[in-house]
Amino acid sequence: MRTLLTRAAAIFLLAAVSAAAPAEKLDLMPVPSSVILTEGTFRVDEDFSVAAVGGTGVRASRGASRFMARLAGRTGLFLKQDFLSLEGDGENAAFIYKYGRLGDLTPGEDESYAITISPDRVLLVARTDLGVLHGFETLLQLLASDRGGYYFPCVQVGDSPRFAWRGLLIDCARHFMPVEVIKRNLDGLAAVKMNVFHWHLTDYQGFRVESRIFPRLHERGSDGSYYTQAQVRDVIAYATDRGIRVMPEFDIPGHSTSWFAAYPEFAAGPGPYRVERRFGIMDPAFDPSNPAVYGFFDRFFGEMASLFPDPYLHIGGDENNGRQWDENPDIQAFKKANRIFDNQALQAYFNGRILEILRKYGRRMVGWDEILEPGLPKDIVIQSWRGPKALADAARQGYAAILSHGYYVDLCQPAAFHYGNDPLPSNGGLSAEALPFVLGGEATMWSELVSPETIDSRIWPRTAAIAERLWSPAEVRDAGDMYRRLEAVALELEELGLTHYKNQEMMLRRLAGGEDVAALKSLVDVVEPLEQYKRHSQGVDYSVLSPLTRLVDAAQPESRTARLFDAAVTAFLRTRDRKSADELRGHLRRWQSQAEALKPVLARSPALAEVEPLSRGLASAAAVGLEALDVLSAKTVRGQDWVREKSRILTRIRQPQAHAELAVIISIERLVTAAGRKS
Amino acid sequence: MRTLLTRAAAIFLLAAVSAAAPAEKLDLMPVPSSVILTEGTFRVDEDFSVAAVGGTGVRASRGASRFMARLAGRTGLFLKQDFLSLEGDGENAAFIYKYGRLGDLTPGEDESYAITISPDRVLLVARTDLGVLHGFETLLQLLASDRGGYYFPCVQVGDSPRFAWRGLLIDCARHFMPVEVIKRNLDGLAAVKMNVFHWHLTDYQGFRVESRIFPRLHERGSDGSYYTQAQVRDVIAYATDRGIRVMPEFDIPGHSTSWFAAYPEFAAGPGPYRVERRFGIMDPAFDPSNPAVYGFFDRFFGEMASLFPDPYLHIGGDENNGRQWDENPDIQAFKKANRIFDNQALQAYFNGRILEILRKYGRRMVGWDEILEPGLPKDIVIQSWRGPKALADAARQGYAAILSHGYYVDLCQPAAFHYGNDPLPSNGGLSAEALPFVLGGEATMWSELVSPETIDSRIWPRTAAIAERLWSPAEVRDAGDMYRRLEAVALELEELGLTHYKNQEMMLRRLAGGEDVAALKSLVDVVEPLEQYKRHSQGVDYSVLSPLTRLVDAAQPESRTARLFDAAVTAFLRTRDRKSADELRGHLRRWQSQAEALKPVLARSPALAEVEPLSRGLASAAAVGLEALDVLSAKTVRGQDWVREKSRILTRIRQPQAHAELAVIISIERLVTAAGRKS
Repeated sequence: MRTLLTRAAAIFLLAAVSAAAPAEKLDLMPVPSSVILTEGTFRVDEDFSVAAVGGTGVRASRGASRFMARLAGRTGLFLKQDFLSLEGDGENAAFIYKYGRLGDLTPGEDESYAITISPDRVLLVARTDLGVLHGFETLLQLLASDRGGYYFPCVQVGDSPRFAWRGLLIDCARHFMPVEVIKRNLDGLAAVKMNVFHWHLTDYQGFRVESRIFPRLHERGSDGSYYTQAQVRDVIAYATDRGIRVMPEFDIPGHSTSWFAAYPEFAAGPGPYRVERRFGIMDPAFDPSNPAVYGFFDRFFGEMASLFPDPYLHIGGDENNGRQWDENPDIQAFKKANRIFDNQALQAYFNGRILEILRKYGRRMVGWDEILEPGLPKDIVIQSWRGPKALADAARQGYAAILSHGYYVDLCQPAAFHYGNDPLPSNGGLSAEALPFVLGGEATMWSELVSPETIDSRIWPRTAAIAERLWSPAEVRDAGDMYRRLEAVALELEELGLTHYKNQEMMLRRLAGGEDVAALKSLVDVVEPLEQYKRHSQGVDYSVLSPLTRLVDAAQPESRTARLFDAAVTAFLRTRDRKSADELRGHLRRWQSQAEALKPVLARSPALAEVEPLSRGLASAAAVGLEALDVLSAKTVRGQDWVREKSRILTRIRQPQAHAELAVIISIERLVTAAGRKS
Repeated sequence: MRTLLTRAAAIFLLAAVSAAAPAEKLDLMPVPSSVILTEGTFRVDEDFSVAAVGGTGVRASRGASRFMARLAGRTGLFLKQDFLSLEGDGENAAFIYKYGRLGDLTPGEDESYAITISPDRVLLVARTDLGVLHGFETLLQLLASDRGGYYFPCVQVGDSPRFAWRGLLIDCARHFMPVEVIKRNLDGLAAVKMNVFHWHLTDYQGFRVESRIFPRLHERGSDGSYYTQAQVRDVIAYATDRGIRVMPEFDIPGHSTSWFAAYPEFAAGPGPYRVERRFGIMDPAFDPSNPAVYGFFDRFFGEMASLFPDPYLHIGGDENNGRQWDENPDIQAFKKANRIFDNQALQAYFNGRILEILRKYGRRMVGWDEILEPGLPKDIVIQSWRGPKALADAARQGYAAILSHGYYVDLCQPAAFHYGNDPLPSNGGLSAEALPFVLGGEATMWSELVSPETIDSRIWPRTAAIAERLWSPAEVRDAGDMYRRLEAVALELEELGLTHYKNQEMMLRRLAGGEDVAALKSLVDVVEPLEQYKRHSQGVDYSVLSPLTRLVDAAQPESRTARLFDAAVTAFLRTRDRKSADELRGHLRRWQSQAEALKPVLARSPALAEVEPLSRGLASAAAVGLEALDVLSAKTVRGQDWVREKSRILTRIRQPQAHAELAVIISIERLVTAAGRKS
């Protein structure tokens, strides 16, 4: 199912790209399989038009209309062409696209495309309309400008994905995400050529989809926040239009408290149950020994299969701690009677029953690592949160598998970390037979600590790096170049309505209670939320009702300023030149002065009180950095006592404050260390 | 239908507010009928909770849950209370609300409320749950903070609206606005106590609602952009939950090209028809002599009446130029046969037939000024775009009427202009009997020149000034104080997802092609879009496909910087003090330097090329201003030749550029004029 590229093709690509003149350095993301720059440019003016040749379907023509609107939006050109109709005139257009057939939304469908731009014509050819949609995105990324206006560089692009399954999970159970959040993120996925939206719809904290057969599920399990079936159909239509599959997840037998708010009789424990407000792993689980449970799921999955057309359906299956099963004598008796010796085997039995139901409705079962138990048939798909080894094990046994370990974007880790995480690591040692079973991967956006206001900033732009890992040849892995292109794509993603940047200043204005947020901005720019699960161990018990409007929530998961500062430190330590020193000094002085500038802001905003130590710490660290910089600039050196004292100060400042940390301290430490030894 | 306040009560209010200590200056908008500050504060901490006493309905309890979420969001407090249920414990809560009955969503329903805050209790009482919702909004505006944390000042508020009909029209025909645009604006309306969403659903450029009886209407009339009936119901439910009526408008017999793309046989002219792309007044109109037209409308309005529960239905009726009627011999024969002597009378005949249909479905007819013709019954409502005189005429004749003239927020006029526009001007001379027929007013957001990206910035915050005009006592009319409060409410509106501020920097980033938009921001901050209809006469023919992503689109309709600069000029010319001079100099120097800073940005962005004259003009004007300021600061004076030369320069700079103008030139001219005479 995987499109294999030869190493030669990939190396050719890199050569082609790197051979380009600096002015032509392309900001393509994901990097295509092959890019060859040729001579000349295709100029874009108001007469630019697009047409299909050889007939077209609505998906491609709607995509072409969106392409034209975005092109007009970026360039300000009053393009003369009307909305695209199915009866376009074709041959006279400057930009022609054609394809062979409508694509199926199934993993492994042909998504390849080729673009040829010459000075008088843009040609996009694909086997399916899915490839055409990808081509539109590449073309928009190729748009460039000079004093003469906008143009496309003349180029030949040949492109197809490395993996067939490139997805994003959004957890809409822990915090409900209105339809517009889903839609703008679907646009984001399409822009970076991802093709699966994994819709995590149920969990302890909420049951988020309307069931007409069992309306109590959404009525009692959602606090009023759920998707109507009309909204689900609307989302699926929107995704389908963008070449994206929508795979629903109903997490069972654990992660299921919200179901029991409606149907306590299906739980293995006595209850009573109410929708969960806290986070973590909880006990409630379906009772696998209760025949009524399977009757219920038969009707429920029948309804959901008619609502969700995707051939895959995810049943979760993770993190059932078995406590309710252990404490239930009926379940113990059931195990004994059926010679089921442990809870793993019991869950395998449960999964087997569910599998039968899903097959009846023509659905392939997907689940997390835990569903992989001996005896399950090979047509299930394993999604690995445990890691590449679990993934490889599944593939070796002949199970299709997708990787999510290392792609948890909610954990606020750097893009480079995700980027370096390959579903097929070069040392993975999978046999040639096992390779095709690794279908791809999914970024996962768990929503304990995000609201509709902040979720985009946790997904974007870092998910674009994951998209590249899953689409581009394995050899494309220069993190520095990735960051350069990521910055460009992050700005382009804004045109789709994504709020990853624009909500930050709004949040700062709310915190500061006014329009002037310059000082607060210079602080938040070097602040990062605590990574992984550390925010949950700061002495505050987060719940679904907790405010997510603090400075830590406004901070980007990965500080761009800190990354650039660290690069400047590296450059300075290598060259010791005046220019690098001045750049560092500029940063450090701004950080030193923000504390004073912030004082009146902090004084009038109690919500910012917790930020004061961060602000003070940054100023102190900046002072240390300036001192070290002076030492280094004067080409003198300080003793180890000085180094130890300054390091102690910096270590204290690095401690978490307000559930966040200062991302530049580690770079300032590098200056201190350097000042303590001979240069 | 109008709640009349005595003048005494209003004056009492002003006295009460102005008696407050400066620190307690309240940012309430709209200003309540009566506010009396008392001693002390109610402190808000994590134990703060809310409950209903005496039973509650879902509308109020959902409103209370939203209130708590916004309170947590603003304060960062981890409030302990769970989502509100209908079975709250009541008496133990710090904040108690109670009301007598569920409110009806009809004009004139009781919306009054009273708030009493003492140091240990917040009490909100209302006759209906609609009043409770208004009370929640007032309470959120009362939230204040000091070094000790957040609090509500102790206060007694008594409040009810001056007018029963306080609305906003959004034109979703010329540019389609997705559901989320509508929803966030409904939240904005609720925040400023408006209670009507007037949904302009059809026009030349689009038919935007699904018809199941006549699906060709949305299929052929919308280019695929329409609201499904499920979405309409969703919007109505959302509005109802916020105490807002949803009145649909189907504009007939003119403004109807999009209908004829589906049903050309109902037009008075021969066609062919396609959905219109351009703007202006067009010829197509329904054929009032065709009996099939009324059969069609009978079924169509029957369907729409079952979809839209509001008792009022708007039929437009404006700007039918009669050309198609004049050119159609059948219509001429029909007029003759029925002794209809002109097109006005013919339209009155048409309206009479439509009125019968609407009555059959229990709907009251609303229309623009033009529908007011002799012989129409008194149960119709006139919406006046022509002006207060037309409004008063209608009221005198016993027609209920609402004012929109002077509330066209799409025309980018200052908030103070709208604010000064009263449905019942003090010199209006309406008799006491006629007064109650003036129901209120509606802001209108026509969408020729807005996209989902920019529409909020054209509606907000200025519509809040209109909301105050329609809610607060007539005597509340200090524009300076209105602007002070408007700035506060503008920031609060952001928490509802409105994009009036946050989309600006995003648009600047797109234009600049990068993150650093400081120089561009200092330019755009003093730029205003051309007012009224002047953008349509700049040599570019706007269509529904034109890009709305240029600098003029990123500019706010009313420059806050220009307003503050003008106030500083006034202060300086009065005092000639150093501090005022320094403030002016600071502005002028920034404007002088932006041109240089912008050069590299303009060079790399062809979309910004049109902005160069604005940038250069601002720098030149700033230089003139600095020169005048030097003269004035030195207490010297310049001759009239100098004044004439500088004025000539400034007059040239004031000319429209890039469909925008510089809003500070007029203030700089004041400096020049002052420098030309003895101080």
